[in-house]
Order: sequence, then structure tokens, then C-alpha cells
Amino acid sequence: MKLSKSLLVGTAALLSPTFALAQEAGVNPSTDTVFILNSLLFLVGGFLVFFMAAGFAMLEGGLVRSKNVTMQMTKNVGLFSLATIFYYLIGYNLMYPLGTWAMGSDETGGYLSGVWGPGILEAVGITAEGADDYSYATTGSDFFFQLMFCAATASIVSGALAERIKLWPFLIFTIILTSIIYPIQASWKWGGGFLDSQFGFLDFAGSTVVHSVGGWAALVGAIILGPRLGKYKDGKVVPIMGSNLQMATLGTFILWLGWFGFNGGSQLAMGSIGDVADVSRIFANTNAAAAGGAIVALILTQVLYKKPDLTMVLNGALAGLVSITAEPLTPGLGMATIIGGVGGVIVVFAVPFLDKLKIDDVVGAIPVHLFAGIWGTMAVLLTNPDATFMGQLMSIIIVGVFVVVTSAVVWLILKGVMGIRVSEEAEITGLDGAELGMEAYPEFTKS
Amino acid sequence: MKLSKSLLVGTAALLSPTFALAQEAGVNPSTDTVFILNSLLFLVGGFLVFFMAAGFAMLEGGLVRSKNVTMQMTKNVGLFSLATIFYYLIGYNLMYPLGTWAMGSDETGGYLSGVWGPGILEAVGITAEGADDYSYATTGSDFFFQLMFCAATASIVSGALAERIKLWPFLIFTIILTSIIYPIQASWKWGGGFLDSQFGFLDFAGSTVVHSVGGWAALVGAIILGPRLGKYKDGKVVPIMGSNLQMATLGTFILWLGWFGFNGGSQLAMGSIGDVADVSRIFANTNAAAAGGAIVALILTQVLYKKPDLTMVLNGALAGLVSITAEPLTPGLGMATIIGGVGGVIVVFAVPFLDKLKIDDVVGAIPVHLFAGIWGTMAVLLTNPDATFMGQLMSIIIVGVFVVVTSAVVWLILKGVMGIRVSEEAEITGLDGAELGMEAYPEFTKS
Amino acid sequence: MKLSKSLLVGTAALLSPTFALAQEAGVNPSTDTVFILNSLLFLVGGFLVFFMAAGFAMLEGGLVRSKNVTMQMTKNVGLFSLATIFYYLIGYNLMYPLGTWAMGSDETGGYLSGVWGPGILEAVGITAEGADDYSYATTGSDFFFQLMFCAATASIVSGALAERIKLWPFLIFTIILTSIIYPIQASWKWGGGFLDSQFGFLDFAGSTVVHSVGGWAALVGAIILGPRLGKYKDGKVVPIMGSNLQMATLGTFILWLGWFGFNGGSQLAMGSIGDVADVSRIFANTNAAAAGGAIVALILTQVLYKKPDLTMVLNGALAGLVSITAEPLTPGLGMATIIGGVGGVIVVFAVPFLDKLKIDDVVGAIPVHLFAGIWGTMAVLLTNPDATFMGQLMSIIIVGVFVVVTSAVVWLILKGVMGIRVSEEAEITGLDGAELGMEAYPEFTKS
Repeated sequence: MKLSKSLLVGTAALLSPTFALAQEAGVNPSTDTVFILNSLLFLVGGFLVFFMAAGFAMLEGGLVRSKNVTMQMTKNVGLFSLATIFYYLIGYNLMYPLGTWAMGSDETGGYLSGVWGPGILEAVGITAEGADDYSYATTGSDFFFQLMFCAATASIVSGALAERIKLWPFLIFTIILTSIIYPIQASWKWGGGFLDSQFGFLDFAGSTVVHSVGGWAALVGAIILGPRLGKYKDGKVVPIMGSNLQMATLGTFILWLGWFGFNGGSQLAMGSIGDVADVSRIFANTNAAAAGGAIVALILTQVLYKKPDLTMVLNGALAGLVSITAEPLTPGLGMATIIGGVGGVIVVFAVPFLDKLKIDDVVGAIPVHLFAGIWGTMAVLLTNPDATFMGQLMSIIIVGVFVVVTSAVVWLILKGVMGIRVSEEAEITGLDGAELGMEAYPEFTKS
Repeated sequence: MKLSKSLLVGTAALLSPTFALAQEAGVNPSTDTVFILNSLLFLVGGFLVFFMAAGFAMLEGGLVRSKNVTMQMTKNVGLFSLATIFYYLIGYNLMYPLGTWAMGSDETGGYLSGVWGPGILEAVGITAEGADDYSYATTGSDFFFQLMFCAATASIVSGALAERIKLWPFLIFTIILTSIIYPIQASWKWGGGFLDSQFGFLDFAGSTVVHSVGGWAALVGAIILGPRLGKYKDGKVVPIMGSNLQMATLGTFILWLGWFGFNGGSQLAMGSIGDVADVSRIFANTNAAAAGGAIVALILTQVLYKKPDLTMVLNGALAGLVSITAEPLTPGLGMATIIGGVGGVIVVFAVPFLDKLKIDDVVGAIPVHLFAGIWGTMAVLLTNPDATFMGQLMSIIIVGVFVVVTSAVVWLILKGVMGIRVSEEAEITGLDGAELGMEAYPEFTKS
Repeated sequence: MKLSKSLLVGTAALLSPTFALAQEAGVNPSTDTVFILNSLLFLVGGFLVFFMAAGFAMLEGGLVRSKNVTMQMTKNVGLFSLATIFYYLIGYNLMYPLGTWAMGSDETGGYLSGVWGPGILEAVGITAEGADDYSYATTGSDFFFQLMFCAATASIVSGALAERIKLWPFLIFTIILTSIIYPIQASWKWGGGFLDSQFGFLDFAGSTVVHSVGGWAALVGAIILGPRLGKYKDGKVVPIMGSNLQMATLGTFILWLGWFGFNGGSQLAMGSIGDVADVSRIFANTNAAAAGGAIVALILTQVLYKKPDLTMVLNGALAGLVSITAEPLTPGLGMATIIGGVGGVIVVFAVPFLDKLKIDDVVGAIPVHLFAGIWGTMAVLLTNPDATFMGQLMSIIIVGVFVVVTSAVVWLILKGVMGIRVSEEAEITGLDGAELGMEAYPEFTKS
């Protein structure tokens, strides 16, 4: 039933005036189809990135001690829900302040009216004329997809600060992060702001815009919060083992799965041959980078410690994913594997490095999301000739300074006003018993 | 590569007779493409709703005691499998008894032949003429999608009756529910029956047709079955803690994910701009309602009990999802959040309310699916002017009476014929040891 | 907005020369749209099959003892990552050695240059002319999809050999399997080789090409490796219980979910009515077969042992899925249920049969993937008139002999060179403590 190319070419000679149009119709997708396929990419990509919220929760829950698992679950469900509400209320329209990319088609109405306020979806049953941007995708699918990136940023923070931060200050920080900090800096690149227009900054799916932002906020939080009791004792690092490594593995696989949506959806279009081929490249490269990070961490921990370390392997895969996120399109499969592999190296060396600085990052979020995020952002230079060294570096620094300063202000205000750390007693008892009165595994944990 | 609108308009003047047709071809998706995209919506929506079977299993397994987890897993795999078989054998064609919506295109053949019997898929490699309904979607994708709704209804029941019901009577009830009770009442609305045609009943994705039906069946079952031993003692409610709250959280996230397919797929079409924009609205609204339910439950339990309650937060998210299910399209994001939030309120107050009545619902299925289902069905009135108060209310009542009566008859027959409750001894030992001889966590559970 | 068929027919008489072309445009998808939809099928199918890696890990982790869970997780993440790297480096182009199906459109460039070497994706932003095969799908999506099948083959092996095989020999075997053994035999069928062209072998999604291959490699490995200590004692089989049946259930559900991509994606096209209807049939049939396998195992274990056996039910569902994989398209729903049900019978009888032979298959991978794979391959004869008894049987035997011989050689070399089995002491202590120094559940396991 398909039109063969040769048939079309053969017919072309016969039907000259109408052919130009008919050929377009016969070869290219219709304009509506393009719009539908772009929107579909966001919906599928969006639900995959949504599922990363579960991935983060499982990873973090598996890497904390069982006495803090209920709290970690509460934080993860809470932060995602608050991100949903506050990105809608404030963040979405703050992120695209000038409507640079969406105002083109419809300057008067739609979700980007130039007026700051809550996100507004298109009307029910729109036609092409009613679409906010008929050349792009539905506003609903765009909002859904963008929201998930904002929420992911907050998820990164929760792991690093686990086992000692109070619930409500953490959730208040989440609100500020998702409604103000993340959207403002994201607008600099993805809202058509100065990093995009003046620095030529390239960050395809957010090694810097998402991952390093979460990483910086986590780093500042971890420093202000201080390490867990007993983590650093007499100049030595005391390993604190996670309660459930099968869950941590599941979380990693879910994150890996979600990353196909994260990077693939960031192509922002699927309605042409070039776009779908690019999305396909991205899927294959994303997977390759994760594999590279995992295998490098496996081999390195075998060589360095004589025993492969599963938590390093899991974080290696995640670091590989973060590393490829700034440029999942232009590398070939081999280069993608290498870029991800370097992420694995970073994790293996950065985790003990942070411990030397007595910065206690419970799940390894800072090496994975911040350090590999920086690496990934610079690695764009390896394969994308449009990237400039200074453009990438300055953007990393500008975003970093902004997030460090704003996060520090928020953390310090929270510390001053309500305190951010649970009592020593509560930390020893476990946050589940002390703060929530509900154990995650009441029948399992050895007394 | 896209056709710009202006190009088409410019060419239009030149080619008047052929243009009308060519413009259609250039702007709109081809008729085959519409059919393909609609079917794709059902396939993607269907696999997401399928995964809800895993979500229910993880949620329920996490909320029962470890001595009953193997049984809960067996029930969940068993009920889904039986739903698959009996919806095929009986339910699917019972649900569309007159073939009201599908007979239009092909009255003689196809899956809706007007003759009661097993579901029959279209032939291999059909053409447009061979399709059962070329204006809609493939029968296979429709069957796959509808089956998952039927199975979800049965999953709702299994949680409420956990930890004391016998395996086989439960599975026999599942057979009756999925082959007879669910399809008959679903036909009243979705098969074009009297609730649809005479009452103007609106229930987009099934707050009543799916969730309240599962909820009513669970309620009747819980009353007839009686509470677990030791749950209500000397006029007091004895809390029985779930064995694995991380699993319960995972189950909630999986259900949340699946709900995008549940509600989004219920648009039943994705082949036009209006349809894909509507699906997009639904995704965003569904997510907003879940967030609303979770946050309201979080805040309410903090205020009421001074300690946030994770199980309430999880059920709050689910109640938010059920609440938006009757109308996920017409609300804006803010209203969707509020409608979901009310679901969270319902859960926080209904769980202790049921305990006062000594109705023992192990996982909170009745508040989540029945009470929030009723609320969601009435909440259609808030945003959809086509809904009438009496149409919604009467439909809720009619469906409720039908399910209560038929479920009660089935439960009572099962009770009389084979008994539905395990022995006291088995309940104390745990169903895994007593009935199955296989522990879910043989190495973990404290003796 | 859709073109009705009658409108087109009515207009046809008026516009005879241009109509033929315009009608195609109005009814059929454009050629680009076909290419996009085919690629989309591979991307969605591919991420679903990717998730099966998590399913295998959860299933296997749940069925081993807690002292070996960290190792099982390490193996599963490791094998998937190595499969990714080596299928790219060697396997992909080895599998399509003559470029039989892809060289048609572009003989000079592209990924199938006839030269053995790493897989090469299409350039960024290709046009129709730049596509390796414009009549099919993007190379990236094809690679992504095919890779997941190769990785699944390796996942099958890891479960059978759990709890006693050393990490590195296992991973080295994985490399040989995914870069050499799997691709060579897959080329015989899917690369257009002699099983396809001379034997008329039919294996839609790989009951033989994927599942039996993993099963044969597992069988040979299990025999050479020998049973776990204490499994067969004084002529009796000592049951060794899995540590986490809820996880095993989750793994099964994830595999079930992934199978929609596995079988549905193997239609290899979604750009026509016939193709999308076939994909729909496949989804519905795949689900039916799983249900059949689960229910038959449930009933059989009830009848034979008086106690339903959850692990048999889970493996029954998986055996049902394997059974339908060779031909998920041509059966009707009833026949699909029966074909899957026979898979359930096979599992229930083959598990104790292997134990009689003292072949210790920890998770039941050999009955599920090898025995049900053979059954499924022969069951093609029931519904597909193009299959021949000898073509199916000879292909099973040829593939089996090839995999048995090559696997045995590799296992024996590994055994001779570095040893494949951990020490008795390590096996008793558990691989996690002895080999990795990291427990999966440090707080749960009873000492």
C-alpha cells in the first residue's frame, strides 16, 4: 500500500502543475500529522520521564537505611507533587518569559501571553488556528514534558540530603527550586535567553540545565546540612550500607528507561525523516553511554578494590546517562560509549573525593549529576562543531554560581527560621520512627 | 520539509478544482494515518493500563503483612489472567451488545456481529474494507485497551479483601465480575446503553464505570467477609502495618504512570489536532489531580495527626487520580488539582470512617475507588456543561445498586457453597504458609 | 476533518488523471509518515524490550537467596551493558552479513556496507535520500530494537546459573554470546540466511532465535557448572526458596509488559492499516498466551500438589509468552490462550524433570525459554499454513546443535582457563559477601 518512490517519479512527468503539490502530499507527512507526531513524542517522552520519579524513589530508598525509607518515600512523592503544582503556578511561564519560541505563531493568546502567571492549556478540541503553536506541538504535551524535567531536578536533591533533613524544610526548598531557581536558569537556555543567544550554549537535554542544577543545589544543601552522624569518625570514613540493593538496581533501570524519553523527547520533533532518525540516534546513544558508564565502573572497582562495587556500577550507568545528556545526538555509538565511560570514571573517583571533604552525599547524586553533568556539557565540544569552549564553560559557571548562591540563601533562611536538620536522637532512631511514626519494613529490620 | 500553510494557500488560486482535495491531503492526516494513530493510542494506552496490574500487585503486597504476600501476588496474577480469558470469552461482546458504535461500518462481519460470543479479531493484514470500523481503530487495539479496564476493576477488589479471603472463591468472583457484572453495566454507558442515551451520563474514563464498580464489589465483599482477626478489639481499631512501604510506593507510582494511558487513551482518538491536544490536556490534568490528592493528604495528616502519613499520601494520589477520571478533559490545570485535592480529603476522612463501621479494607480501596469515584463523577458538573446533576447521580445509584446486588448474590452463594474465608488458624499463621506453603520473604520475616 | 471514503469515490469521476495520485495522498499515509511510524514502532518496542532487562533482574533477584542478590544484580547490569557494547562492536553487522534486506535501497553507504565492523548510525538530520533504507525505518531505531533482543538472550542465561557462577567468566561468556553466537544464528533466519531462504523457517519474534538460544546456552552452562551445593542430597531434591517473591512477581509483570514490544515490534512495520491491525492482534494474542500459561500452571499445581505454586504461576505466564513468540500473529485469541496454556503445562512438568536429571536451573529458565521455545516454534504449524513440520524441526535442531556446541566450547575453555565456579566456602557464605563484600539486604537477613 506504500507509494514507492519510483512510482511517484514516474508519474511526475505526466502531471506537471498539480504534481508539485501532490508529490508533497504523497511524500511528506501532512502538517497536522507533523503536529500530532511532535505532540506524541512529548507525551511518550513525558510519561517515560515521569517514571523517573519512581526511579529516583526506588534508588534512594534502596540506598538509605531501612529506618529512613518511609521518609525517603514521603519526600519523593511530596517533591514530585509540589513540583507539579508550582511549576504550573509559577515555573512554566517564568521559564519562557519572552515567549521567544512559541509567540511566533500566535502573539495574542495562548499559554505564552507574555504575562507572568499560571500555565494555561489550549482549549478543548482546538483546530490549527486555535493551537498556540501549530508549527510545534500541543501546549499540553509541552507542559507535561517540561514539567517532568523540572521535577527531575528536585528529585536529584532528595537523595544527597537523605537520612537527616527534616521533611518540611526540604519540601519548601523544593517549591523554591521548581518554581523559581530552575525555571529562571532554564529560561537562559531553553527560554531563548542570553546563554542561548549570546553564549551559543549547547545543552541538548540538560546536563547543565537539569542535572548540574540539581547537583549544585544538593552540594550546597549537603554542606550546610553537614554529614550524617557517625559517617566520618576519627578521620575515617565509615561506610553506611543501603538497605535494599535490589530496589536500588530497579531504580537505576527505571531511570535508564526514563532517559530515553528525557533525551529522545528533547529532539522536540518527530514529524520528519530527519527528526525521527535523530530521535533514533539519541535512543541508541543514550543506551550506549549508560552501558559505557556501568562497565567502566565495574572494571575500575575490580582493579582498584579487587571487588566490583554494585553501587558504583549503578551510579556509573547513571553518570554515563548524565554525561551524554548535553549532546546525545551528534556522537556516534562508539563516542557515546566513551563519553558515558568517562562518567563512570568520574563516579569512581569522585565518591571517595567527596568523602575526603566530609561532604556526605548519601546516594552519590553529586558525582552523578553535578560532576558528570559538567563533563557532559564540555564533552559537547568533542562532537558538535557548533559548541565553543568558552560558551560551554561560561554557561556552566554562570548557572553554577546562580544556583549555588540562590540555593545557599534559601537553605540558610530555612536553617535560621525553622531548622533543616532533625535532632540527633531522631537521626539515631531513624526518621521513620521519630518523625513519621511509621516503619517501612516493620517485620524485617533486625532490632 | 513541512508544508507551510501560506504555501498551500498561495497555490490554491492556481489549481481550483483539484485544490480542495489536495489541500486536505496536505494539511490533514490521511484517513489511514488517522486509523493508525487511533490504534496506536490504544496500544500505548493499553500497555500502560496493563502495567497497572503490576501497580496494584505492588501496592497491595506492600500493604499486607509479609505472611500474606505470596497469596496476594498469586491473587493478582490470577485475577488478571482470568480477566483476560473471560473478558475474551464473554465480557467483550456482552459489553457492546447492540454493536451501537461499531456496527456502523460493517454490519455483517467483524467482532460485533450482534451474536453473543467470544471476541474475534480482524483478519491478518486487513485493508480498509476489511476493518471492522475504519473510522475508528483496529479491533485488536480496542479489545486490548478495553480488556485492561475490565481487569483493573477486578484488581481493585483484591486489595480490600486481602489477608483473609480464600484464593479460589476470590478468583471465581473475579470471573463473574469480569465476564458478567462489569461488562453489563459498562454497556449501559460505553456500549451506548440507557445511561448514555437516556440519562446523558458522562464518565470519560470510568470513575463510576470502572472504579466505583470495583469499589462497590469490594465493599460488599468486605462486609460479608468481615474484618481481619484482631483488627477491631474492645471497641478500638488496632493498626496493622504493611510489610513493605517502598513497594507500596512503587505500586503507587506505577499506577500513576498507568493512569496516563487510562485517561489519555479514553479520548479514543489521536488522529486530529483536536484529539491530540485533548489527549495532551488529559495527561497534564491527570498528573495535576494526582499531585493535588497527594499534597492535600500530606498536609491534612500533618495537621490532624502531627505526623504525615505515607499510606495516606499514596492513597491521596490515587484518590486524586480516580477523582479526575470521570472528566480529565474539560478542567484546567488548577481545577484538576482541586478536584484531585478533594479526593485527598476524602481518603483522609473515609479511612477512619470505615474503621468506625468495622469495615476492614486492607489497602484503602473503598475510599480511593468508590468514594473518590463518586466524587469524581459528580465533579464532572464543575467543568462540563453537558453533565446534569440528576444524570450523574442517578447513574451512580443505578450502577451502585446493580453491582451491590449482583456482588452480594455472588459472594453469598460462594460463602454458602464453598466458604470464602480461611480458617482462624490459617489467618493467624498467614495465608502463605497455611494455604500455599510458600513464604514471600523466607529469610527476612522476624519469627 | 477526515476524508470520508464516499467523498473520495464521488470526486474520483471528476478528476481522472490526477485522482489516482491524490487519492493515495488522501487515504494512505505519506511515504515519510510510513517511515516515521515504522521507526516509532521500533523505538517504543525497543524501550519496552529494554525494560525486560529490569524484569529479568527483578525475577532472578527475587528467586535467589538474599546472600546472592547483589551478585545477581551486578551480573544483570553487567551483561546488559556488555551486550550493548559488543552487539555494537561486532554483533549487529555480523547478524546481517549480506545486507540482504537493507542493502536494497542503498548499496554503497549506510550501516550495512557488506564490510564487517561496528554498527554505524545514519547521519544527523538525514533526508529520504540519506536514509539507509527509506522503505523500512531508521537504522538507529532498528539497531536499538535488535540490540534489545540480543541482550534478552544473555539475560536468560544469568538466571539458570545463579548462586554459584563466578562473575567474570559469566560476563566473558556474555560477550561471546552477544557478539558471536547469537548474531550468527540470528543471521540464518533474520539476516536472510539459509534457515529463512532454504528451510522456510518461521519464527516471528524468536521462540527459537532468542529464547531457545538463551535456553540452550543456559542448559549447557548448568550441566558444566553443576548444581548448587546441597540442592540434591541423598537422591532427594532439596527445595531452595527465593528470597523475595514480591520482587519475582514484579519482574514477571515487567517481562510481560516488555513482551508487547518484543512481539509487537517484530511486525517491523506500523505504517499501513494492515500492519497496525497486525500489531494489535499481536498485542492481544501475546497477553492471551501469558494468561493461558499462568492459569494452567495455577490449576495444575492445585490439582497435582493441592497447593497453587506462585513460582510456577509466574513461570507459567512467562512460558506462555515464550510459546506465542514464534507466531503471535496468525492465531486467534482462543488459540493463543491454548498455545500459552501448553507452555504452562511444560513448566509444571519440566521443572521437576530437570531436577530428576540433577540439572539445577535456579529460576526455571530452561523450561521457560528452551522447552516452551521449542513448543512455540512447532506450534506455528497450528495456525500458519506457510510453516512446514520439517522446516521448523530442522531449524530448531540446527540452531540447538550450533548453540550447544559453541556454548560448550566456550564454557569449557573458561572452566579450564580461569574456572567458572566459586569456591565451596564462597558459595556457602554467599557470593555477595565472599566475592563482592556487599550485602543486598544488610539489615534484613536473619543471621
